[in-house]
Amino acid sequence: MSAEYPESLQRLIAQLRRMPGVGPRSAERIALWIVLGRSQGSVKRGMDIADAIRDAAENVQSCQQCGFFSTVPLCEFCRDPKRVNGPICVVEQPTDILPLERTHVFQGQYHALGGRLSPLDHVGPDDLRIASLLDRVKSRVEPTEVILALGADVEGEATSQYLASLLADFPNVTVSRIAQGISVGGGLEAADELTLTRALTGRVSWKGRA
Amino acid sequence: MSAEYPESLQRLIAQLRRMPGVGPRSAERIALWIVLGRSQGSVKRGMDIADAIRDAAENVQSCQQCGFFSTVPLCEFCRDPKRVNGPICVVEQPTDILPLERTHVFQGQYHALGGRLSPLDHVGPDDLRIASLLDRVKSRVEPTEVILALGADVEGEATSQYLASLLADFPNVTVSRIAQGISVGGGLEAADELTLTRALTGRVSWKGRA
Repeated sequence: MSAEYPESLQRLIAQLRRMPGVGPRSAERIALWIVLGRSQGSVKRGMDIADAIRDAAENVQSCQQCGFFSTVPLCEFCRDPKRVNGPICVVEQPTDILPLERTHVFQGQYHALGGRLSPLDHVGPDDLRIASLLDRVKSRVEPTEVILALGADVEGEATSQYLASLLADFPNVTVSRIAQGISVGGGLEAADELTLTRALTGRVSWKGRA
Repeated sequence: MSAEYPESLQRLIAQLRRMPGVGPRSAERIALWIVLGRSQGSVKRGMDIADAIRDAAENVQSCQQCGFFSTVPLCEFCRDPKRVNGPICVVEQPTDILPLERTHVFQGQYHALGGRLSPLDHVGPDDLRIASLLDRVKSRVEPTEVILALGADVEGEATSQYLASLLADFPNVTVSRIAQGISVGGGLEAADELTLTRALTGRVSWKGRA
């Protein structure tokens, strides 16, 4: 007989280990914390966590228009009537949206590509939400600005250039990109609010670039 | 409108933050990992984790006899017929049992007190599983050894002394304690297998102590 926890507890440890950043030690610690609650009459604690996971996994989906997180087909930004005709800020990942939003300097809508062009990783234009971006731009009657807010590393840069060249075909559209602030060689998630504020307010026209 | 994730996602982040060792950053990272699986058709991942938590929280209980984790009234060690008449190893916490068990030098049963005497924290004899330990000892017909495997810090030491004085009333019972190996001032959970092996094999009779 090998000395182990009951199977139910072992299974829990194994499942917790799948979570990012949770190693064997923390998985065991969390699992014991969950089952030790039992004697204090708090099976509820584990239930609450399980319910929250189940609820989010079942109900949180991608906004059909911009790709942000939402429990309904259109996210809060895409539903907001004050934003409907605003500029469109293009980001790589849906997780890039909240950091930008927290600067309070942007009042338009977003569009998450779901990544960036990366030939080495076999990510081409068809793997990103580029067609739906063009559809959105096409459907605009009023003049529109598209702000490219991708990372400043090589692949983000290449993706921006590719999008700018596609968007140049729309006479109605001004293309800009966030400028100083995001550190060259890095992505968006490491930048603080002030840096992102500067990046948004200091954006320069794509055509005016050196 | 404050910029936030959908409520369902915020609730998940809040629940994950309750787990020991999970800070705001890791909670957000884990939550996004759970909901981002959705687009790849893997709501299942979140469900599997939720099910494991629910199952363990509902079914893992304390062994009625020794306090170890079990999904049935008696744990695997207390059910094992080869161990029924063996020595009883007394530990502070049920989590102390597996590390001892993995040394493979002990073939008896365990008894987890659920803590140790600590007047400052208002933990007295009645708050620990001491009465049930005495009942177990009383019910033994054959001579029995009780091995005290508590921490070597002040409170563990005081608890050991208290138990030894109670057990001295049973002529049938030899009391010993694990000796060298556990570091003075520390608890059991930090010791490695070799240290615990030495602690078990080098145990000394309570009466022979300096």
